[in-house]
Amino acid sequence: MAVLGANQYGKAESRVVRIVRGADRHEIHDLNVSTSLRGDFDAAHVDGDQSAVLPTDTQKNTAFAYAKLHGIASPEDYALALGRRLLEATPAAASAQVRVEQYAWDRLGRHAFARRGGEVRTCVVEIGRETVQVTSGLQDLVLLKSTGSEFKGFLVDEFTTLPEADDRILATSLAAQWVHDAVDADWNASYDLVRDVLLSTFATTYSRALQETLYLMGAAVVDTLPGIAEVRFSAPNKHHFLVDFSGFDVDGLENNGEVFIAADRPYGLIECTVVREERDS
Amino acid sequence: MAVLGANQYGKAESRVVRIVRGADRHEIHDLNVSTSLRGDFDAAHVDGDQSAVLPTDTQKNTAFAYAKLHGIASPEDYALALGRRLLEATPAAASAQVRVEQYAWDRLGRHAFARRGGEVRTCVVEIGRETVQVTSGLQDLVLLKSTGSEFKGFLVDEFTTLPEADDRILATSLAAQWVHDAVDADWNASYDLVRDVLLSTFATTYSRALQETLYLMGAAVVDTLPGIAEVRFSAPNKHHFLVDFSGFDVDGLENNGEVFIAADRPYGLIECTVVREERDS
Amino acid sequence: MAVLGANQYGKAESRVVRIVRGADRHEIHDLNVSTSLRGDFDAAHVDGDQSAVLPTDTQKNTAFAYAKLHGIASPEDYALALGRRLLEATPAAASAQVRVEQYAWDRLGRHAFARRGGEVRTCVVEIGRETVQVTSGLQDLVLLKSTGSEFKGFLVDEFTTLPEADDRILATSLAAQWVHDAVDADWNASYDLVRDVLLSTFATTYSRALQETLYLMGAAVVDTLPGIAEVRFSAPNKHHFLVDFSGFDVDGLENNGEVFIAADRPYGLIECTVVREERDS
Amino acid sequence: MAVLGANQYGKAESRVVRIVRGADRHEIHDLNVSTSLRGDFDAAHVDGDQSAVLPTDTQKNTAFAYAKLHGIASPEDYALALGRRLLEATPAAASAQVRVEQYAWDRLGRHAFARRGGEVRTCVVEIGRETVQVTSGLQDLVLLKSTGSEFKGFLVDEFTTLPEADDRILATSLAAQWVHDAVDADWNASYDLVRDVLLSTFATTYSRALQETLYLMGAAVVDTLPGIAEVRFSAPNKHHFLVDFSGFDVDGLENNGEVFIAADRPYGLIECTVVREERDS
Repeated sequence: MAVLGANQYGKAESRVVRIVRGADRHEIHDLNVSTSLRGDFDAAHVDGDQSAVLPTDTQKNTAFAYAKLHGIASPEDYALALGRRLLEATPAAASAQVRVEQYAWDRLGRHAFARRGGEVRTCVVEIGRETVQVTSGLQDLVLLKSTGSEFKGFLVDEFTTLPEADDRILATSLAAQWVHDAVDADWNASYDLVRDVLLSTFATTYSRALQETLYLMGAAVVDTLPGIAEVRFSAPNKHHFLVDFSGFDVDGLENNGEVFIAADRPYGLIECTVVREERDS
Repeated sequence: MAVLGANQYGKAESRVVRIVRGADRHEIHDLNVSTSLRGDFDAAHVDGDQSAVLPTDTQKNTAFAYAKLHGIASPEDYALALGRRLLEATPAAASAQVRVEQYAWDRLGRHAFARRGGEVRTCVVEIGRETVQVTSGLQDLVLLKSTGSEFKGFLVDEFTTLPEADDRILATSLAAQWVHDAVDADWNASYDLVRDVLLSTFATTYSRALQETLYLMGAAVVDTLPGIAEVRFSAPNKHHFLVDFSGFDVDGLENNGEVFIAADRPYGLIECTVVREERDS
Repeated sequence: MAVLGANQYGKAESRVVRIVRGADRHEIHDLNVSTSLRGDFDAAHVDGDQSAVLPTDTQKNTAFAYAKLHGIASPEDYALALGRRLLEATPAAASAQVRVEQYAWDRLGRHAFARRGGEVRTCVVEIGRETVQVTSGLQDLVLLKSTGSEFKGFLVDEFTTLPEADDRILATSLAAQWVHDAVDADWNASYDLVRDVLLSTFATTYSRALQETLYLMGAAVVDTLPGIAEVRFSAPNKHHFLVDFSGFDVDGLENNGEVFIAADRPYGLIECTVVREERDS
Repeated sequence: MAVLGANQYGKAESRVVRIVRGADRHEIHDLNVSTSLRGDFDAAHVDGDQSAVLPTDTQKNTAFAYAKLHGIASPEDYALALGRRLLEATPAAASAQVRVEQYAWDRLGRHAFARRGGEVRTCVVEIGRETVQVTSGLQDLVLLKSTGSEFKGFLVDEFTTLPEADDRILATSLAAQWVHDAVDADWNASYDLVRDVLLSTFATTYSRALQETLYLMGAAVVDTLPGIAEVRFSAPNKHHFLVDFSGFDVDGLENNGEVFIAADRPYGLIECTVVREERDS
C-alpha cells in the first residue's frame, strides 16, 4: 500500500521589482523569488483536504507585500523576513524555504538604469521552528583564463584519446554557494568580499585542473571569511578546442594557442565542496 | 583551515545517436548522456595530481563506444553497462552515476524519422562497488484537465485574495521518477506501463488539488507495479487564468470557463514522493 | 534631420487557451497570438500624441475576446477575423498582421489532454484595406534520414577539408511557410495535406544535398495543391558526425555508420523558396 | 510547375574565440559568426549538382582561419574581410552576408577575464560584386526608467480597459541596428559613441510612449553621427504592473509606485526606423 513520503509546495519565480523613490533619486531591487513550505500536509495529498494549506497564491502575495513592508536591504535580509512570515502564517509547516535571485542594474541617471548582465546573486534561506540557515551565492559567472592552465598526468585506459595539455584555455560558468554560520550579518559587504576572493583567486593561481582551481577558490573564501563554513561549486568545464589549421596550405596560417572553437555540449561538470576543518571534526 | 568535502566530476550531455542498420529497416536511439564519478579524488583537488582521474573526455568516448559495444536495448540497460565500465576503469571511484534522457522518434519510412516531441524518457543509474540503484522517469509531459478540478477550503490569512474555485483548469509539466527494486527487468515494458498508469489516473480522477492528483498517480503506480517502491514528482502548477470579460460592453461576450490566459511565471511548484508502505517500516 | 521611417507596433505572444465545452466532451485550442498594426502613426513617435494608437493592451483583449466571439475553427480563420477587427478599430492603420502558433494536444479522456510536442502549426495573416494574404506553416518539425543521403562533388578551395560523403545522416528542424491564393479554404484539411506531402517526400526521395531535398519537398507541395503558389523553407542542417573509433584498441569497435554525435553549433542553414512558375511570369 | 525562387545557404553560429597573446598580456575576442551566400545555386537545388557550392563546412573553416589571418580589430572589419573572401572563393555567388555577435569580457588580470553580460554588439555586412553595406548594432540591452514615463490619450474602443498612466515604469530589451554610409571607419569608436547617445537619450528624455522614446533615441543618433543614415529598433515593452495591495487589510501596505511584477508574456513590441531626411528625398 502506498503512503506519502517527503513533500513540499510553494510558488516559484515571482518576479518582484521594488523601486525606492528617494527625493533625489530612485533605487531598484530586481528579484526572482521562490518560496516553499514543508511539514504535515498529508491531508492535502491523501484526503484532498486543503485546510492546512496556505495557497501558493498567498505566498506570492506575501512576497510582493514584504517587498514594501520589510524592504529589500539585501536578498538575505528580505528572504529571512519573508520566510519567517510564511512559517508563522502556516501552523502545519515545519519549515519554510525562500530562494532569491537578484539581477544587478547599473545607474544611467537619477531614475534610469541598464541591467548589468553577467552573474546573478542568489540566496537560499531555510527557516525551521528552531533553526535558521542562510546560504548566499552567485551563478552564471563566466570566467576564462587564456593561459596558466594545464591538464596532464591523468589516468589512461583504452578509451582515452585526450592528449596532455601544457597550456590550454580554462573556462567555466560558475555557480557557487556559501553557508553562513550567522543569521545576521552585513550581507552585501560579505557578498562583495566573497566575490572578490573568488575572482582574484581564479585570476592569480596556476591551474592543474578545474578541480584544483575550484578547491583553491573555496579554500581562499573559507580562510578569508571566518563566518563561512562551507563553499559549494558547480562548474561546467566550457571546452575551448584549438582549431586545427594543419590541413590548410595557406601562408602564415598556424595556430599557436590563438584560435579556438567554443563548444556547447558535451561539457565537463565539476562539483565540489570546500569546508572549514573544524566543522568536519 | 579548509578541506575538501563532497565532490564528483564527469561529462555532461553527450548527444549519442545510435543507428541500428537492419537489412530491411533502420532503428534510431537518440540519447543525451551524462556520467559522473565519486570517490577519492582529493589529490586532484588539493595537490593538482590527476593520476587517479579518468578524464571526462574518456568518459565521453566510453559513452559513444558503448552505444556500439553494448547497444541501447533501453536507456536503463545501456546506463548500467556504461556505469559498470566507468567504475571498473577508475580504481579511485567509489561509485558511478549515469543519467540518460531519451528522445522518441516516429517512423516515416524504412530509414526516415520525425522526432516525436512531448515527454522525454529519463533514467538515472547509481553503481557502487556493492550496490546498484536504477531509477526510471519522464519529464516535460504536459498534462491538462479542462474540468474536474477544484481548489477550495484552504487556509486564509490577511494576504489571501484567491477565491475558491469549483471548476478550474489543472495543468502541469510533469517530471516523475520511480525507483526500482530490481537491477534487471524489461525496462521498456515497465516504462510503458508506468506511463499508462500515470496518464489514466490523471485523466480519470477528480482533483481537489494538484497535490491530491499527484498522490493518486503515485499510489496507482506503486499499487500496480510491485517492483517499484517509490515515485517522486516535481510538478509546476501551470496556471490558466480565466479572462475577465466583465469590462466589455459587447453582446454575447461572457466567459463560462471557455477562455483562459496561460501564464508563465510565477507558477506553483508541487513536489512529493509516494512510497510503498513496507519500505517505511 | 531625422524623420520617421517604417514602423509597426502590437502585442506579442498572448497565450490564448480556448476550451469548447461540449455536452459530451471538451475540445482545446492552444494558441500563441501576436498582432501588429502599420499605418500613419507618426504623431505617436514624433509628437508623443497617442490619439491614433489602439493600445497593445486592447489588441490583447481583442485576441482573447475573439477566441469566444468568433471561435477558433482554425488558426487561419481566427486570425482573419481578429485582423479584420483590429483594422476596423484603428482608422490610422493601413494594415494589420496576425501571427499564430498553435500547439497540438492529444486526447486522454473526455476532459483530459496531453500536449503532443513536436512541430508547431503556424499562420500569418496580413490584412490591408484592400488586400488579404494568408500564409500557413509549421516549425520545429525535426526530421532525420539515416541513409539515402550524400554530399559530394562540391566546390573545393584551400580552406576545404570536408571529405565527400556517400552515405550520411541528414537531419533538420524544419520551418516551412506556404502562401495561399485564396482567403477562404478548409484550412485544416489543407494543413494536413501539405504536412503529408512534406513528410512523404522527405521520406521517399534520395538526397544529394539538403538544398535538393527542400526543393523536392516544395515542388511536391506546389504540384499537389493548386491553391498554393509559394513555399518557403528555413532549415538548419543539424549535423550528425560519425564518431571516430579508430584510436581505440578494442575488439569489435568499428563504426559502420552506426554511432554519431549530434552537434549543436555551428549548423548549416539552408533557406529557399519554391514558387509556381505562372506566378513568376 | 514549380521553380526555384529566392535562396541562400551558409554556416550559422560558429563560435570563434581569438586570443591575442601579447608579451605582457592577452586580449580576447569572442564572436558568434554566421555566413551565407546568395547567387546562382539552382543546380544544387534542382539537379542535385553541388559543383558551384562552397560547403558550409568550408565557410566555417574560413571564419576560423580569418580570425588568425586577418584578425579581429572590430566585428565590422573582420566581417568585411571574411565576406570578401567567401565571395571571391565562390564564383556562383552574387553576394555574401556575414553576421557577427560579439560578447564583451572584463579583464581580471593579464590572462584572466570575466564575461560582462548585458548587451551583445552585433554587425551585419552585405558584400555584393559591386556593393558593400555595413550595419552595426546591439541587442539584449535591457533599459528601465522608474519614472518620467506616461501613456495616455490613446484610442479607445469597446475592448479597451487600460487606464491612462501618468507615471509608469518603462522598460525594454533593446535591439538596435544602424546603417553606415561608409565601408571604412573607426568602428569601435563609432560603436561607443552610438551606445552613449542611445543611453543618454533614454535616460534624460521624458517618455509619452515607447514609440516616442525610440524615435528620440534614433533621431539623436542620426543627428550626432553624420555617417549614419538609418537606425532601426525592435523593442519589447517589458511590462511592469503595479501590484494591487488594496485587498489587504494590513497597516502601512500601500503601493505608491513602489512594488511591481515584471511580466513575461504577452509584451508590447514596438518596431521603428529613423532615417536621415536626405536619404528619403
